[in-house]
Amino acid sequence: MIRHFDSKEILASDSFYRRNLITCLSGYKSLNLIGTQNSKGKTNLAPFSQVFHIGANPPMLGILFRPNTVIRHTLHNILQSGIFTMNHVTSEFYKEAHWASARWEDSEFDAVGIEAEYLNDFKAPFVKKSPVKLACTVLETQELKVNQTIFMIGSIDSIYIDDKGLRKDGSLDLELLDTVTVAGLDDYYTGKSLGRLSYAKPEGLPEEI
Amino acid sequence: MIRHFDSKEILASDSFYRRNLITCLSGYKSLNLIGTQNSKGKTNLAPFSQVFHIGANPPMLGILFRPNTVIRHTLHNILQSGIFTMNHVTSEFYKEAHWASARWEDSEFDAVGIEAEYLNDFKAPFVKKSPVKLACTVLETQELKVNQTIFMIGSIDSIYIDDKGLRKDGSLDLELLDTVTVAGLDDYYTGKSLGRLSYAKPEGLPEEI
Repeated sequence: MIRHFDSKEILASDSFYRRNLITCLSGYKSLNLIGTQNSKGKTNLAPFSQVFHIGANPPMLGILFRPNTVIRHTLHNILQSGIFTMNHVTSEFYKEAHWASARWEDSEFDAVGIEAEYLNDFKAPFVKKSPVKLACTVLETQELKVNQTIFMIGSIDSIYIDDKGLRKDGSLDLELLDTVTVAGLDDYYTGKSLGRLSYAKPEGLPEEI
Repeated sequence: MIRHFDSKEILASDSFYRRNLITCLSGYKSLNLIGTQNSKGKTNLAPFSQVFHIGANPPMLGILFRPNTVIRHTLHNILQSGIFTMNHVTSEFYKEAHWASARWEDSEFDAVGIEAEYLNDFKAPFVKKSPVKLACTVLETQELKVNQTIFMIGSIDSIYIDDKGLRKDGSLDLELLDTVTVAGLDDYYTGKSLGRLSYAKPEGLPEEI
């Protein structure tokens, strides 16, 4: 059976119900832990589901920061230092990653028991156990007029990948890397491969490659 | 073993290799078919992996359009008509969804064999078999300075959901709905649930709910 919500019903629904529903509508979301450090050297770690690809040449990614949420330390530290790390989450530590979103006084690395590491003199902390780690620098930040969401674009300056998941053509096998994805606010999944498909041409249905 | 790419290596790598690598770095991406219609009534359908949540109150989503790619018809139609539909893809028709990205002369609905439907007088076509369908209106469009990507924000005006995947609290069970996710350019997956986690508080590790 199809359940239909028109705009009146959506706006009239309970705010908790509406938030659960609307955050699920786009589908599966990426999950990354962002690592930062403030000017006093205190580290911060927070899970983000709003990170996406912006361009490959030069390599860039985008992040959406909701206004007035628990992620403010991350935004503050990035604006102060200009840099951050992005780290894939695996099924081994997705509960700790979720836990890092609580309101901690101390560094989330210590609080939730996720080990930090520093690589090649980059001043922001990486997640040691993460199979895909990126060192990033802020390029541009803007506020969206529609709801004061902050949209940040960063350059990808350095990439660290567990080579078991790096294919010969540069693509990543996210199932082998055990990368976790999130739906809505709190619903975690790993991926089950359907297959890669050949470049789409009118001549025939794409095939698994 | 960890494979490290510094910025020089990234920029010096083969463009095909780099594109495969960089598009995979954010992790799993949402997958939606966007349905549109031009002023002459010709329909268009195209797969998008760059759709994300913007806000729940009012409900909004964002889409990134790469400049100069096969998706231009979609952008053109949306700017002309002001409206579009978003439709989740399932494992039953993910190959046809991928195929819709080929350069078709005719409507992709007919070309790849995906059935369209029209609901409640909305002028853009939905994907009949999709378990999650949204009717959307453009709110704002801007060009990103960094690489001329188009960033569009739309309101979610109407929602159609197969109720087998709609939980009592408003969230969606994407595994039950058989929603597909994509990595990089051509790598498709369904989700395998790890579980939902309780709201994160410092008092203790979040639990499955």
